[in-house]
Amino acid sequence: MKKVKLPQATIARLPVYLRSLVILANKGEQIISSDGLASLAGTNAAQLRKDLSYLGEFGTRGVGYEVDQLINEMSKWLGLLRDRTVVIVGLGRLGGALVGYQGFSEKGFKVVGAFDRDPAKVNTEVDGIRIRDINELKDFTKSIVGGVDIGIIATQASSAQGVANRMVSAGIKAIINFAPITIEVPDGVVLRQVDLSVELQILSYYLQKG
Amino acid sequence: MKKVKLPQATIARLPVYLRSLVILANKGEQIISSDGLASLAGTNAAQLRKDLSYLGEFGTRGVGYEVDQLINEMSKWLGLLRDRTVVIVGLGRLGGALVGYQGFSEKGFKVVGAFDRDPAKVNTEVDGIRIRDINELKDFTKSIVGGVDIGIIATQASSAQGVANRMVSAGIKAIINFAPITIEVPDGVVLRQVDLSVELQILSYYLQKG
Repeated sequence: MKKVKLPQATIARLPVYLRSLVILANKGEQIISSDGLASLAGTNAAQLRKDLSYLGEFGTRGVGYEVDQLINEMSKWLGLLRDRTVVIVGLGRLGGALVGYQGFSEKGFKVVGAFDRDPAKVNTEVDGIRIRDINELKDFTKSIVGGVDIGIIATQASSAQGVANRMVSAGIKAIINFAPITIEVPDGVVLRQVDLSVELQILSYYLQKG
Repeated sequence: MKKVKLPQATIARLPVYLRSLVILANKGEQIISSDGLASLAGTNAAQLRKDLSYLGEFGTRGVGYEVDQLINEMSKWLGLLRDRTVVIVGLGRLGGALVGYQGFSEKGFKVVGAFDRDPAKVNTEVDGIRIRDINELKDFTKSIVGGVDIGIIATQASSAQGVANRMVSAGIKAIINFAPITIEVPDGVVLRQVDLSVELQILSYYLQKG
């Protein structure tokens, strides 16, 4: 594993390659061509080869890539060989859906805590996770051995920045914001902003061209 | 507006540029440099300039881009100058969250129908939308003037392909699948697969490097 810094766009594509490779592995495929993998991942072979060149030397010209080897290398690069702990703040419908989202646990992301400020929700359970008061976030985070890796914000837009501040103050270094508002975090904290309407806008492009 | 086919990766970045531009416009900014816009959108200036070059000629060297002009052009390219109708199938927590997702309506995506196969859910309401039996999907779609533009699948993995088949059969040409399974659609139908764990995997990369 080379020690280089990957381009941001390459990092964002790795999980998509990985998902395609896992699908191939589940079908029993052992070798995949760059055209084949690129097509599954929605990119082109030149881009795929460039992305993979950052990770090391893989594949045999005229044959293809070994599926298992690529899965292993990409999992290493993405830090997926260990489990990650996750807390979710905001237990509205979206937050509730994320607590139970099968795709998280399957990939080693373990929801260890759920928080809300609504007294009617605090101390109720969602999918076996007790909802705690948001004021307990810092103490809870400190109580988790190894710390909390990732904080997910699923509140209303108006609460998102305040929740992000609490997460940062609790020592959480990676945050995903699902609230439809742009928030800011200090240097040293990684932030991903998720906007579910992006996918609809992409489809809208194809609808008018089709 | 030039009549060219945009690269898939460029199409996927347009909504991200657009979101950044709308934030700038809301702050009263009228001009933005390519470095500034690229940074907001999480890409680099060379990539941004290349993407914009497909759309036409914009910007003044040494000055920057006119925010309003770019918003208008990108909205045209993305087909966002008209509203789009959306149906959601699968009214579990995620489906319920999507029915009320503020980011959809704000961008002109109007949820006109919601469907489930669970008799306990059928004829109840979510956010003012009556949940219909999945067997009514085809008739409902035909009853909507102008048709249904986009179908969202928010079912369990095991039901996703069947629901996609029903959508295709009802004449829906664009589908988003939130179920954690890969599905197939015939040529002429556009499919986007959403995996919410991709964002967690990207954060995982930064956590181990940080």
